Amino acid sequence: MLEICIIGTGRVGSQLVRVLSHTNSVKITQIYNRTKTKLKAFESIAPTTSEISDLKSADLALIAVKDDAIAPLISSIASIFPTIAHTSGSLGLQKHGQNNAVFYPLQSFSQKEIDFNQVPLCIEADNRQTFDTIENLAKKISTQVYSVTTEQRKYLHLAAVFANNFTNQMYAMAQKICQANNLDFEILHPLIQETATKIKTTPAIEAQTGPALRQDTQTMQRHLKLLSTPEEKEIYSLLSRAIQNTHKL
Amino acid sequence: MLEICIIGTGRVGSQLVRVLSHTNSVKITQIYNRTKTKLKAFESIAPTTSEISDLKSADLALIAVKDDAIAPLISSIASIFPTIAHTSGSLGLQKHGQNNAVFYPLQSFSQKEIDFNQVPLCIEADNRQTFDTIENLAKKISTQVYSVTTEQRKYLHLAAVFANNFTNQMYAMAQKICQANNLDFEILHPLIQETATKIKTTPAIEAQTGPALRQDTQTMQRHLKLLSTPEEKEIYSLLSRAIQNTHKL
Repeated sequence: MLEICIIGTGRVGSQLVRVLSHTNSVKITQIYNRTKTKLKAFESIAPTTSEISDLKSADLALIAVKDDAIAPLISSIASIFPTIAHTSGSLGLQKHGQNNAVFYPLQSFSQKEIDFNQVPLCIEADNRQTFDTIENLAKKISTQVYSVTTEQRKYLHLAAVFANNFTNQMYAMAQKICQANNLDFEILHPLIQETATKIKTTPAIEAQTGPALRQDTQTMQRHLKLLSTPEEKEIYSLLSRAIQNTHKL
Repeated sequence: MLEICIIGTGRVGSQLVRVLSHTNSVKITQIYNRTKTKLKAFESIAPTTSEISDLKSADLALIAVKDDAIAPLISSIASIFPTIAHTSGSLGLQKHGQNNAVFYPLQSFSQKEIDFNQVPLCIEADNRQTFDTIENLAKKISTQVYSVTTEQRKYLHLAAVFANNFTNQMYAMAQKICQANNLDFEILHPLIQETATKIKTTPAIEAQTGPALRQDTQTMQRHLKLLSTPEEKEIYSLLSRAIQNTHKL
């Protein structure tokens, strides 16, 4: 039985509570959030506390709080837990605990329940035994477990900004254009799904199509005229040029 | 029985041949490509020709050639066919034929076979009877049929550039970052799928997350340092600013 204390009940923390409370050979010993009212929903699952001084030792503390709160938090609980793992994509392996690890679920968590089995878990530890503990835990809840160093994880997090946040901004801009012209955004759903599905089998660079790749200057000029703000025009021009540069046109 | 002549056998044309050759109450009377060798694959399906003068009358000519070839082509066949529809997203309704229509499949076609049933078909015609003919045909091969005016279609095509080409460029940049750092791009697949799936239920603007939205300047500065070219840095900055402007931050 692996005893785990979960620190933080935001998007990541609450998903971890949910999945770990149903995982064999795992026991959630305590759930912490500094704001007492945010613990209400978790009281039926495990003992909760909003006081660091109330925390009791367990095999592992899993930390899912904001990036800038992680280092001070680890320092304040280092003497309580033999092993401490944080769940941040952008922070390095912390060295304040006895045994230190990273347990980074690379997924965009919303309120909605997610199939954790398909969430890539990127793990790292400062010694072999801790790595094995974390790896065993990770493999119990996901089929996608990757050993990723701190240096790699920085780049992975950066790549995720392009693949998720910037992609979503492209969707938002497409949606805005549709709404402004009484077009049902649903018309674009199949195209969006197909574009996302294609990368599973085709390198993105090979999957590219469209006016920029075709060097169809007339269409690009027409599109620029249709866009309503200087920022939209700038994005259109810059990304079209980037497509052409990527393809050495 | 609707008799159709298909003009052009590129990505769109060949998909139309494939689906229409299996559609009830539809007969492909001829398949045209100006390059004879490109017709080989279609000889078993219907009579083929690379000569405009060989074209025989049919109820409908479906034109799937490059945008700049469409207008001259329609002029040259206007006397042969009572109804002529083009399949371009960016061109307006042409007026050279007796009855004119647009039959625009909004999907990114690659070599791979696609489930045409899920492809949105955006249709338009210059009179009611022609519209009905085109709509009946469209509904035979797809469950997603939309009436879209020329003016709306221009914007739809523009929105598709954001939702498909620019999104794919984001994937390409993420993939490049992964490759440069020995990271399996597969780690990002679930995130990409989730981001694309989420837009079916959540407006893109509400689904946004990440350092730009959080105004996490430290992370953004770190990311900018990790990017290797001025163009990548420019894209990162511009899109981060666009996210913040979209959310009025």
